[in-house]
Amino acid sequence: MSVQRGWQFFMHPGPTNIPLRVLHAMAKPAVDFTSPEFVALRDRCLERLKGVLKTQKGFVIAYAASGHGAWDASIANLFSPGDKVLVCQAGYFSENWSVTARQYGVEVESVAARERHAVDPDAVEERLAADKSHAIKAVLISQNETATGMRHPVAEVREAINRAKHPALYCVDTISSLASYDFRMDEWGVDLVIGGSQKGLMLPPGLGFNALSPKALEAHKLSKMPRSYWDWSEMLASNANGFWPSTPATNLLYGLEVAIQMLEEEGYAKVFARHDRHAEATRRSVRAWGLEILCAVPEEYSSSLTAVMTPPGHDADRFRALVLEQFDMSLGTGLTKLAGKVFRIGHLGDFNDLTLAGTIAGVEMGLELAGVPHKKGGAQAAMEYLAAEACKRVGVKRAA
Amino acid sequence: MSVQRGWQFFMHPGPTNIPLRVLHAMAKPAVDFTSPEFVALRDRCLERLKGVLKTQKGFVIAYAASGHGAWDASIANLFSPGDKVLVCQAGYFSENWSVTARQYGVEVESVAARERHAVDPDAVEERLAADKSHAIKAVLISQNETATGMRHPVAEVREAINRAKHPALYCVDTISSLASYDFRMDEWGVDLVIGGSQKGLMLPPGLGFNALSPKALEAHKLSKMPRSYWDWSEMLASNANGFWPSTPATNLLYGLEVAIQMLEEEGYAKVFARHDRHAEATRRSVRAWGLEILCAVPEEYSSSLTAVMTPPGHDADRFRALVLEQFDMSLGTGLTKLAGKVFRIGHLGDFNDLTLAGTIAGVEMGLELAGVPHKKGGAQAAMEYLAAEACKRVGVKRAA
Amino acid sequence: MSVQRGWQFFMHPGPTNIPLRVLHAMAKPAVDFTSPEFVALRDRCLERLKGVLKTQKGFVIAYAASGHGAWDASIANLFSPGDKVLVCQAGYFSENWSVTARQYGVEVESVAARERHAVDPDAVEERLAADKSHAIKAVLISQNETATGMRHPVAEVREAINRAKHPALYCVDTISSLASYDFRMDEWGVDLVIGGSQKGLMLPPGLGFNALSPKALEAHKLSKMPRSYWDWSEMLASNANGFWPSTPATNLLYGLEVAIQMLEEEGYAKVFARHDRHAEATRRSVRAWGLEILCAVPEEYSSSLTAVMTPPGHDADRFRALVLEQFDMSLGTGLTKLAGKVFRIGHLGDFNDLTLAGTIAGVEMGLELAGVPHKKGGAQAAMEYLAAEACKRVGVKRAA
Amino acid sequence: MSVQRGWQFFMHPGPTNIPLRVLHAMAKPAVDFTSPEFVALRDRCLERLKGVLKTQKGFVIAYAASGHGAWDASIANLFSPGDKVLVCQAGYFSENWSVTARQYGVEVESVAARERHAVDPDAVEERLAADKSHAIKAVLISQNETATGMRHPVAEVREAINRAKHPALYCVDTISSLASYDFRMDEWGVDLVIGGSQKGLMLPPGLGFNALSPKALEAHKLSKMPRSYWDWSEMLASNANGFWPSTPATNLLYGLEVAIQMLEEEGYAKVFARHDRHAEATRRSVRAWGLEILCAVPEEYSSSLTAVMTPPGHDADRFRALVLEQFDMSLGTGLTKLAGKVFRIGHLGDFNDLTLAGTIAGVEMGLELAGVPHKKGGAQAAMEYLAAEACKRVGVKRAA
Repeated sequence: MSVQRGWQFFMHPGPTNIPLRVLHAMAKPAVDFTSPEFVALRDRCLERLKGVLKTQKGFVIAYAASGHGAWDASIANLFSPGDKVLVCQAGYFSENWSVTARQYGVEVESVAARERHAVDPDAVEERLAADKSHAIKAVLISQNETATGMRHPVAEVREAINRAKHPALYCVDTISSLASYDFRMDEWGVDLVIGGSQKGLMLPPGLGFNALSPKALEAHKLSKMPRSYWDWSEMLASNANGFWPSTPATNLLYGLEVAIQMLEEEGYAKVFARHDRHAEATRRSVRAWGLEILCAVPEEYSSSLTAVMTPPGHDADRFRALVLEQFDMSLGTGLTKLAGKVFRIGHLGDFNDLTLAGTIAGVEMGLELAGVPHKKGGAQAAMEYLAAEACKRVGVKRAA
Repeated sequence: MSVQRGWQFFMHPGPTNIPLRVLHAMAKPAVDFTSPEFVALRDRCLERLKGVLKTQKGFVIAYAASGHGAWDASIANLFSPGDKVLVCQAGYFSENWSVTARQYGVEVESVAARERHAVDPDAVEERLAADKSHAIKAVLISQNETATGMRHPVAEVREAINRAKHPALYCVDTISSLASYDFRMDEWGVDLVIGGSQKGLMLPPGLGFNALSPKALEAHKLSKMPRSYWDWSEMLASNANGFWPSTPATNLLYGLEVAIQMLEEEGYAKVFARHDRHAEATRRSVRAWGLEILCAVPEEYSSSLTAVMTPPGHDADRFRALVLEQFDMSLGTGLTKLAGKVFRIGHLGDFNDLTLAGTIAGVEMGLELAGVPHKKGGAQAAMEYLAAEACKRVGVKRAA
Repeated sequence: MSVQRGWQFFMHPGPTNIPLRVLHAMAKPAVDFTSPEFVALRDRCLERLKGVLKTQKGFVIAYAASGHGAWDASIANLFSPGDKVLVCQAGYFSENWSVTARQYGVEVESVAARERHAVDPDAVEERLAADKSHAIKAVLISQNETATGMRHPVAEVREAINRAKHPALYCVDTISSLASYDFRMDEWGVDLVIGGSQKGLMLPPGLGFNALSPKALEAHKLSKMPRSYWDWSEMLASNANGFWPSTPATNLLYGLEVAIQMLEEEGYAKVFARHDRHAEATRRSVRAWGLEILCAVPEEYSSSLTAVMTPPGHDADRFRALVLEQFDMSLGTGLTKLAGKVFRIGHLGDFNDLTLAGTIAGVEMGLELAGVPHKKGGAQAAMEYLAAEACKRVGVKRAA
Repeated sequence: MSVQRGWQFFMHPGPTNIPLRVLHAMAKPAVDFTSPEFVALRDRCLERLKGVLKTQKGFVIAYAASGHGAWDASIANLFSPGDKVLVCQAGYFSENWSVTARQYGVEVESVAARERHAVDPDAVEERLAADKSHAIKAVLISQNETATGMRHPVAEVREAINRAKHPALYCVDTISSLASYDFRMDEWGVDLVIGGSQKGLMLPPGLGFNALSPKALEAHKLSKMPRSYWDWSEMLASNANGFWPSTPATNLLYGLEVAIQMLEEEGYAKVFARHDRHAEATRRSVRAWGLEILCAVPEEYSSSLTAVMTPPGHDADRFRALVLEQFDMSLGTGLTKLAGKVFRIGHLGDFNDLTLAGTIAGVEMGLELAGVPHKKGGAQAAMEYLAAEACKRVGVKRAA
């Protein structure tokens, strides 16, 4: 890449932009992590994360690990080799959670979503209803599929489980929705939540979260999987005693407290609305360009990212490379079978209207540069929507 | 302002955006500024600034002061009370340099530019030709007028002085053009240059520069103005001996070396072209909106900033306030008699195409929000120009 | 703690002081970790770590995890449930590695060191010689026991294994010696190395390392332990292809490159000598105070830390608390059965002679404050040793 | 200097160590300095500086300039060419203030202190009493002479002026005592205070302060000195209207607020006591070494720094160079006629007991290294004093 000036437009669906305030909160000297002051900081962070997840009964655990480690932790703590789980399969990341489960000797059965669709709660209900023996120990789902830009119906799947009167644990991956979407752990009867630091929480990678319900904790007691670093019992016992079973990621915890503080200052309702707004603006651009959004169903659109399909014969990665080189904007690539066919625009985390406007302009210019057939007017469409929203906020009536 | 996420769009014609690399270069512990290592750093910086100014004969001095201090230094070192100078008057900042001169007891005569025009070299020639007794000691001009977004014809005024065969010193303020425009101190026969850290050099305010020709140094020896902190003789003698006459702004000097390094990595030819490109894109937007650029003459357009006039009855500062509140973009205000009538878009320093695209979108949305009559299509116009330029860079032929 | 000024004296045997240059290297924006530039940075880091470990045949893996995670990785990759390992038991951390092994269903046999002594290579030889069936799959040892301040004879244990003609894998934990002590993976026939970021590498916690020999890789292929995040095969295959199996700890990797750069600038021979010098100075102080060093055998003294015993009836933690409160110095505590009986002075990482002198003074003053019986002169003794060493460096002959 | 590890011991009497919290407070993006938020920050800073100076009637002005600029400002605003001032002469810095005054055409008369002594208030009284015509417009004094480590009797000189019934303005330079010593502007009838950012305020150089009494403001109105950047009237008028006459040193102001916050958290009484304690500990070391403190009178000892004389034939700068090279400690040099004869230990600013202990150890080891004749026991003496003070703080009775 040639020398570039100014801030890079970093529009990935994760890792996401890190606020300077968070960067400097982390740029701190070493700390005695067993000191009462630091233990208190951790406890404040974990408590406030419970607020983010809307749980009062749950427990939150923070690992020095990336989100993939949180997957391992979920499998290693909840199951025994030979157990069976039902995975709502809908893209690279839910598939990968399955891979992890299988690597631990867990049998994985899938309810696959139709292509470009989210998982269908009725299909889940049907499969569970058929499981008379309750062989299925858990249902696994991602609230947001990062590879495809699709939102899965977490509340509805809970209802499906209920309708099937099935006792399975309900496990939800919120890696790319945590602190970007509303989440209601208690209300939705979620037993296990997976999260990471590097998306909506605006931190670098390196913290992986598990949140667990009392029911998950009961299941954990029966689990025969070998584990040490990931072990919930040790972690919860240590944490409860003001200690740690292993060295924590101290500087990320410093950053976490500030990131949560910033989100609370904004207010989660506004945070969620901001993500919805930027997603809608992005989609209006895509439609104006005459391109297709990968996600086929409006109710299932992701608010964290939008995956855009390039027309056949037009390599999405060549487009991405040109955008990076000429405009210093880094976009997400298509994963596995989507490689070269989609590019992903992340619009989550530390992000505002003008960053989005610049992003959309960069995409529109890049389409031209790469010779990808499109109509003009995408940036205009995004701008009009954002302006209309701002007019609403200030109570201005717009010209017709 | 409500809580905002992401980087603020800070689009002032100075201070300008500071790269993180520069911020961290400055976030250094205290230093023994008399140590050989630190003195060498200063000398490297001053030498490289000579490269920026294209001078081999000149001397560069860095004051711990903002640009206004550099004005004081120029007056206090070159003149004696009662001396006369000719000022190319064309806006708030050239007027203010006159004010400084007058405060030092220097008589100021002006060649005023026509409103919305740059200074006319012929008018300078005429005035100097009439000064048979050579009472005028110096001609003062700004390369770029920050208040109006106008570029003055520095090379042409030198020719005018030559044509008038007048021995006056030639003094040029480059506060808002230094490291953003080409400047040729030796070739243009400039005797004194004024500069500051907080514009094209991408640093916080706190360093003021004087560059002086041997002829300026001769004039300095005759100057009877009281001075101490600003005294060139002391500064040059100290610097030449590896010392300092007063405590330097150590941390800004750390930042200066990195900022110059970054500009050199990009290459000044590209830096200047980048400023020209962003200025042209901005003007295309303004025209598309149907608004007026304050500067009336295309040859005189500034590449650092564009001052845009709001239609009568539409307060530019109300518009700016809305843009700040709703889009977290900070724009420059109109100064003195331009207050409320213009807003200024700074496009200099650490800045790229997408930042500009976001900026222009913010202005266009703000115009709607503030109810300022305008046509749509400004952002589109900027984008098309930037895309066309990128296509040229990569050798892509655009669709008709 | 009351308000304190200046830098905290943070004298733990880990985490250790983080240089400002490293802190700012980590305070960087989000990065596309799949970009060629970032992958190249990782590869450079891993390659240079091979230099630190003196291995050409080995492979290095960096996990987003703390050192405890690296333990899990070693067990999960090398063994199968029911395998047997022989642990050189000599303190809290080697015991904990055993705990991890047991948690994974590995049978642990111990060669326990005598109290306050390092492990005896002859005892290892004896035990291995008796293992005719080669039921023991691996010998586990720590190069430096962080809990007791003892250095284990890693080269000599290799010789013991050789003498016993036993094919066991040789696994060494270098958490608190990595980049502080000489280590020769290839020469010593080490098959697995455990390391972490937060000690000699001067980084925050959050990176755990495994280095593996080709023989370890062979053993890995036979391992039947469930694993995913820790899986070597996936990690090595991904890394070799310029990819990652899971999100890396991007910002720590930025810091790692700079930390290695700093160590290389100093030169590892000097780094090791510095650690030895500070350890020796510390011990001279302890002896002058008339206190006992926990480690009973001079050949086994740690160069990373010194564990000091407080006389019976004098609570080491009360002493530590006073030192923290009155002098803002944080010292290491005694772990488990050593709690209250020892305090630990870390002298590894980013650390110099005067920091040590201040540290020793803080301990000496703290002993007085806490009423711990001692003789004066400890600080004096350290200082005389450091001065003598400096005199040697500059070739000054000291006064008798 | 060879590669060094750990924090440099930076023991200058200014610039002084900058806390990380302050460094990061300054590492902020560009700001619209005319925004209400930033103007409010400035006003809070100036108001709290009035608290530091204990003035309710005074006005505080902050220049983007180093302390030498604040001298210029004082002369340029208070006097007219030909005015006479009486300077309490006692070292490099008070001499330099005189030089500045003379450069502005002000006549300087001196009351010279005896060598190694502070100024004698009676001598001031005598000189003023003889000035029947009140030709002397002002008395100039430094609260602390940075070149010699001497404290001047500011309150007593005020009494001397009163006894002489002389209307002279009273001007005090607090560059190296501001926020380190008690200062009572109103109570002591001080009309002008000079200050800078880079000493007790723990910031980098780049802010110079003037504080002025109403009487100083009256005198200012009569002053005929040419000035612009330094002009008080413009500065006060602008500041009062929420504006600035010139670009402020924005990032230093960010740092200033945090630095003041930190000092307030500690409490000024404790800050002053800390400086006194470290100065006393240092002097005990010097005496134990058998060296001489430059300042001959105990009542006049500086609490900011201690200037130590090396015995004849022993070059203080060679000693300093060895200390820097071998122990990475930077000490202050002897200025002008003291060059090579003294070294200065700064013990002001962001500094604690153990830093001092390390510093003293570094000096003691350096004396040996440089072959400067001295007795051992200096570090021991400092330590005993610091321990005794800590024992008092916690109410521990020390062993005899």
